[in-house]
Amino acid sequence: MSQEYSGRLQKEAPIGVFDSGMGGLTVVREIMRQLPNEKIIYFGDTARLPYGSKSKATVTRFSRQIVNFLNSFHVKTIVVACNTASAYALEDLEGESDIPMIGVVKPGAKTAAETTKNARVGVIATEATIGSHIYTDYIRELNRDVTIYEKACPLFVPLVEEGLWQDPVTDEIARRYLNELIDIDIDTLILGCTHYPLIRSTLGRIMGERVTLVNPAYETAIELRELLLLKGLLNDEAPRLGENRYQFYVSDGADKFKTFANSIIKYGVLSTKTIDIERY
Amino acid sequence: MSQEYSGRLQKEAPIGVFDSGMGGLTVVREIMRQLPNEKIIYFGDTARLPYGSKSKATVTRFSRQIVNFLNSFHVKTIVVACNTASAYALEDLEGESDIPMIGVVKPGAKTAAETTKNARVGVIATEATIGSHIYTDYIRELNRDVTIYEKACPLFVPLVEEGLWQDPVTDEIARRYLNELIDIDIDTLILGCTHYPLIRSTLGRIMGERVTLVNPAYETAIELRELLLLKGLLNDEAPRLGENRYQFYVSDGADKFKTFANSIIKYGVLSTKTIDIERY
Repeated sequence: MSQEYSGRLQKEAPIGVFDSGMGGLTVVREIMRQLPNEKIIYFGDTARLPYGSKSKATVTRFSRQIVNFLNSFHVKTIVVACNTASAYALEDLEGESDIPMIGVVKPGAKTAAETTKNARVGVIATEATIGSHIYTDYIRELNRDVTIYEKACPLFVPLVEEGLWQDPVTDEIARRYLNELIDIDIDTLILGCTHYPLIRSTLGRIMGERVTLVNPAYETAIELRELLLLKGLLNDEAPRLGENRYQFYVSDGADKFKTFANSIIKYGVLSTKTIDIERY
Repeated sequence: MSQEYSGRLQKEAPIGVFDSGMGGLTVVREIMRQLPNEKIIYFGDTARLPYGSKSKATVTRFSRQIVNFLNSFHVKTIVVACNTASAYALEDLEGESDIPMIGVVKPGAKTAAETTKNARVGVIATEATIGSHIYTDYIRELNRDVTIYEKACPLFVPLVEEGLWQDPVTDEIARRYLNELIDIDIDTLILGCTHYPLIRSTLGRIMGERVTLVNPAYETAIELRELLLLKGLLNDEAPRLGENRYQFYVSDGADKFKTFANSIIKYGVLSTKTIDIERY
């Protein structure tokens, strides 16, 4: 399998990862943990975030520009670390690219389908991801007996970005959003937005111990490892001492991004550069 | 004065109004009330909203594209119905344009400076507007004795857009943001973001009767009238029966915009079109 890319893609090449902003860093964190040899180029579209309330056409246009930008680094694969872009843009972009791409939706859907025992799965996400019904479609492909309950939670992203990860207001909003999912007696809940793992403890407390929370960021890193192995692209070379393997780019507000990013990836974000993404 | 523009600008031409999204509709509502003869072309940059957390360079680039779009309708004046764009971009754009432009910050600052009796004024706004200190600068120009207290309230916009105009959560968040302004004993509070008039009753209840709330949307419509009179551009012709004088454009999600818009301007938004603003 590896010959297919050997002319162009190198084991030592970086992995491209992108998100509408900062949420994708929860995916980067998992890749760093599970694939410590890999270099990462991250792009956060902070000038045009959030994606979760925007249309398929707009999210696809924005994502295409980002793929062009990441390709300028000769990345060996691209991780769409944004549920909305995975739902709306991934399929089109895969068709246009000869680089393997992976989103966060399929790995999360697969794990949920395997985890549920009572065949009742909840999905919480942005308006766009919920409106696409992509989690429902993927889970039903794997297991037609599962019933999926979808709930858009548009206030979670601003609450997380305001830093209210542990706060009575976040509790109250979460209770309103989640109440119907509790009533319906789901046993598995997909955190269908990359910001949501940051309020995982609040969500877990409200849903109760019986409900398993699925974090697609974690599952995506596992699937990425399998993909790289299959393609013969896994980097087996350990980083050199003192080498900085991680580069971060944004479309706006590099300093603000760096501060927030270091609250997710402790001391991992050494520098962030701003670029004009509309040129790509 | 009117000769200056007579070759190009016509009394019958529309007024261009723009905002990052929907907040600017509170300004449109005031213009409709105070200047019922005027035609309006509104643009809301829903693909790239919000502006309030973004940088000066980015907000200026976005605003310049919108001015180019509005100029394609031969508008006779442009109202920057967004505090962030007024703070960051208006001065640069005025320098590049031969059409009169007006923002929401100066009218609000002027009214606050005239209203306060104890010379203590509060300003609530987005992070970007607060970070620019533009209200403070304008008020101090008018009256050096006024002390201005600034407070960024980043959650108000998502709460308004989620429809929680009257809600215990909005109360709780408002109390946290406003507590320090109450302690400081201000007697005048500027609603420095065009979304905030929509939660005016909550803000008024929390601040108490002693505090006057200044709504720059209202003051801007008054100043717009004065500007048009001065330039000889006020439209004195009443609309024809059944004529639709208002056109709405957005960069994404026309249907969603229309629904929200009609909750602000009752039955006033008949149709909304989506355009690609990055082309301008």
